[in-house]
Amino acid sequence: MRNIKLTIEYDGTHLSGWQMQTLDKRTVQSEIELALQIIFKKDIRITGSGRTDAGVHAQGQVANFHTDSTMKTEEIVRALNGNLPEDIVILAAQDVPKKFHAQFSAKRKTYRYTILNRQSRTALQNNFLMHLPYKLDLTLLKKEAKEIIGEKDFRSFMATDHAQKNKLIIKDTIRKVYSLKIRKENDLIHIDITANGFLYKMVRNIIGTLLEVGTGLLPPGSIKKIIKAKSRVAAGMTAPAKGLTLLSVKY
Amino acid sequence: MRNIKLTIEYDGTHLSGWQMQTLDKRTVQSEIELALQIIFKKDIRITGSGRTDAGVHAQGQVANFHTDSTMKTEEIVRALNGNLPEDIVILAAQDVPKKFHAQFSAKRKTYRYTILNRQSRTALQNNFLMHLPYKLDLTLLKKEAKEIIGEKDFRSFMATDHAQKNKLIIKDTIRKVYSLKIRKENDLIHIDITANGFLYKMVRNIIGTLLEVGTGLLPPGSIKKIIKAKSRVAAGMTAPAKGLTLLSVKY
Repeated sequence: MRNIKLTIEYDGTHLSGWQMQTLDKRTVQSEIELALQIIFKKDIRITGSGRTDAGVHAQGQVANFHTDSTMKTEEIVRALNGNLPEDIVILAAQDVPKKFHAQFSAKRKTYRYTILNRQSRTALQNNFLMHLPYKLDLTLLKKEAKEIIGEKDFRSFMATDHAQKNKLIIKDTIRKVYSLKIRKENDLIHIDITANGFLYKMVRNIIGTLLEVGTGLLPPGSIKKIIKAKSRVAAGMTAPAKGLTLLSVKY
Repeated sequence: MRNIKLTIEYDGTHLSGWQMQTLDKRTVQSEIELALQIIFKKDIRITGSGRTDAGVHAQGQVANFHTDSTMKTEEIVRALNGNLPEDIVILAAQDVPKKFHAQFSAKRKTYRYTILNRQSRTALQNNFLMHLPYKLDLTLLKKEAKEIIGEKDFRSFMATDHAQKNKLIIKDTIRKVYSLKIRKENDLIHIDITANGFLYKMVRNIIGTLLEVGTGLLPPGSIKKIIKAKSRVAAGMTAPAKGLTLLSVKY
C-alpha cells in the first residue's frame, strides 16, 4: 500500500473550510475525495494536517492518502487538477513512508495574516485581507507580539465554542510559538506566525487581540495578562477568516 | 468651477474596461459617473488618464471632473465609495488647478505585469496573474528587456485593430520608456514598466513578446528586430489582460 502526500493550495472564499460536513457543502476535503473517487474508482479518505475554517486560504496545506494504484505521482497531480474546481489546486504529490500521517507527523506550521491599514476599503484583494481603517502603532504591535513567542498555555486564545460544540475536553492547550514576524509593505501588514501547532482559532484570536493593542483599544502589556488569565473572555476579538492563509506545514 | 482629481483602484475582472460603451456594460467610467450623479444630482463627465481594457486592474488610475459643489474632498471620497460597487474604490480626491487634465497632463505611467511561473495553475490569484508553466530564462529576459528602454517608435507593439476599429490614423507612435524592472518573488515574476505614455495594448504586446524570447519561442535579439520592423505582425503574442495592473500616473 502506497502512502501519498499532497501539497495543496486553495482559495477558501467559497469553501466551507477543510472538513467534510453535510453533503451540500463544498469543502477542500470533500472536493479532493470526489476527485480521487473519479480517478481511482473507489472511495479514498484523505487526512489533512489540520482543519481550516471557511474563508481561510492555503498556499501549502498538506494531506495524505493510501492507494494500491501504480500511477506516477506527476500523473496523480495532473489527474487531480483536471478534476478539481478552480479554487483548489494540487501543487505536488510524493510517496512518503508508511508511518507518515499529515496531522500527527506535523512538526511546525506557518500561517500568514494580512491587514490592509488605510482609510479606503480595497477593490482588489477583498477576499484575502482584513481592512483596518484605524491608526496602528507598529512599534507597539511588534513589542507586544514578543509575548506570544515561546512554549505557553494559549487557552485564552482558543475558541471556546469548538470544545463545547464537539463535546470535547481539550486538556493540552500548551503550544510552542517559534516566531512571529511583522512586515509592512506599503499599506499592507503581513504577520507570519510559526508554531508546533495551533489551538482552534488561535491565530485569529492572537491577531485580533494584537490589533486591539496596536490601535489603543487594549493597553500595552495586555497580551501577557491575557495569557496568564487562561480564559477566552480575557482576550480580544477574533480577526476575520479571509485575512488568513496557511503558508506551510513542515515534517 | 472646481477641478477635482480622483485616484482610483479597481478589480477589472468583471468590468468591461474603463470607457463607457453601451449601457448594459459595467465600466469604471460609467460606475463612477453613476455615483457622481447620485451624489450631485446632475450629469458629471469624468476624464481618465487613459483607457484600460476589460480584465485590466488599477491601483492608481487617475481621473478628473468639474463641479460647483462645495463638498469637502474627504466627503466626496466617502460619498463616492458608499455608492460604488465592491470592485471600484476611490483612494483620494483633491482640488487641482483649472488646467489639470487627467489625460493630457500625465507625465508618466507605471504598469505592473505579474506572471506565475510554475507547473501548477493557481487557486489563489487566478484573476490577477498570467500562468506560464514553461521554463523561463530570466537572465535572457532581463537582457532582452533592455532593448525596450528609451525613446523609440513602438508601432510594432501597438494593436492594429484599435486604429482600424476607430477609423483613426495613429501618427505618433513614438514613446519614451523610462524603465523596465523584472523582480522574481518565489514563483511570481513582476515586470514594472514606466513610460511617458503607452500605445494601445503596448504593455501586453511587449510582455507577450518578451515571454516568447524567455521561453525560447523567439531567438535572442528579437526585440531589437521587431522594433525596427515597425509592424505589429513582427511581434509576438498579446499577454492576457488579467495579469496587468496600472500602478500609478505621475503629473
